[in-house]
Amino acid sequence: MAYELYYWPGIQGRGEYVRLALEYADAKYVDIALVPAKKGGGVPALEKYLNGRGIQRPPFAPPFLRAGRLLIGQTANILLFLGEQLNIAPRDDAGRLWTHQLQLTIADLIVEAHDTHHPVGSGLYYEQQKPEAKRRATDFLAHRVPKFFGYFERVLTRNKSGPGMVGRNLTYADLSLAQVIAGLQYAFPHGMRKALGKHKRLRTLEEFVFSRPRIERYVHSGRRLAFNDDDLYRHYPELDS
Amino acid sequence: MAYELYYWPGIQGRGEYVRLALEYADAKYVDIALVPAKKGGGVPALEKYLNGRGIQRPPFAPPFLRAGRLLIGQTANILLFLGEQLNIAPRDDAGRLWTHQLQLTIADLIVEAHDTHHPVGSGLYYEQQKPEAKRRATDFLAHRVPKFFGYFERVLTRNKSGPGMVGRNLTYADLSLAQVIAGLQYAFPHGMRKALGKHKRLRTLEEFVFSRPRIERYVHSGRRLAFNDDDLYRHYPELDS
Repeated sequence: MAYELYYWPGIQGRGEYVRLALEYADAKYVDIALVPAKKGGGVPALEKYLNGRGIQRPPFAPPFLRAGRLLIGQTANILLFLGEQLNIAPRDDAGRLWTHQLQLTIADLIVEAHDTHHPVGSGLYYEQQKPEAKRRATDFLAHRVPKFFGYFERVLTRNKSGPGMVGRNLTYADLSLAQVIAGLQYAFPHGMRKALGKHKRLRTLEEFVFSRPRIERYVHSGRRLAFNDDDLYRHYPELDS
Repeated sequence: MAYELYYWPGIQGRGEYVRLALEYADAKYVDIALVPAKKGGGVPALEKYLNGRGIQRPPFAPPFLRAGRLLIGQTANILLFLGEQLNIAPRDDAGRLWTHQLQLTIADLIVEAHDTHHPVGSGLYYEQQKPEAKRRATDFLAHRVPKFFGYFERVLTRNKSGPGMVGRNLTYADLSLAQVIAGLQYAFPHGMRKALGKHKRLRTLEEFVFSRPRIERYVHSGRRLAFNDDDLYRHYPELDS
């Protein structure tokens, strides 16, 4: 059985955290947005689940995942499920909950990264909130990034046994953290040079994740979209100084 | 064994979502912030976990919960754990993941509610971001509240079998949603009269949750703090119009 990933086409967005987990584990999946609408895919297939009257347990937003009869929404929840299915998280309760806890902290960082360019309203254009975005981005780089990076660096330091944050093997949380670091480097090349200079383990983790053979294969396959300024991470030079 | 809840004193904050679950299930717990520091409690006890060098798996922020040897952070993660422990979530995979998915969507709403008064930076005072807060709150009430409330109303409508969102019994997600509705009514009495007028099931759920005997007992015990303007939900009349 192939998993079905439902996410908007044209951006990495939050779907990318799920894709990285599926690719790293070499799981079979269909990216439904890339299936032609007349073959039951595309945006109409997403909208059926979001707006369809017959959906008993509708997701609030993409991404969501179909796995047989299960329909699972919320990125961190999908990864909690896939962690077990694909063996990319510890199996014991303590390790499973700890990995999920890290993922939820990463999710908090992702929201804050997004809100640097949309501090007033996600339905408005960036151009409608530029002064507010400048203030928020400045605060983000000065206070929030150091706090989050310091935290994850500490977590990496305290895990003596592996290249990642939990135990001996990479987990989905490591994949997500590497993706956040890559995204922030795209958005804030100047700010990140400064921030990552102090956090060697974060740089090493990002390099390690993106040099895993299956992740490299994915990156070079053409399936991984490039970062772009309609996406979660946006490079507006005026916010990066 | 009593659970130990670690959360800042003086506010409900995110700790309250955990307290409501513990109280509803009649679980034994110690609110560590209320234990005198010289008896090992208070803020120093929280800081030991946040900043202590010996903590192998440190939480990023309160709330966190100690359950025997487990230390669990992130509100939704704590509730995922307690859902199973206290039997306030379904036991099957589909129901367990669905309840958690709802909780994560509630968590998204909570962040957005908080950011109405702190759109620029959580480390700044409200007084330093009043114009931005006004814009964000206006957008929140006009667009985000209707979207979230419409969603949860739909979820309640489609669950034919219970008073809450999932199956026949209340879950921790129902308790959290009722708390969000109560908090938003405190913050935006005007805006909520309008928003809740169209969402009868949300009003009914809130009333149902806060009339459960153990929740009533908790509310009248004096242990539940009042909403206040140093907290997550803040009543600034200028944002409520």
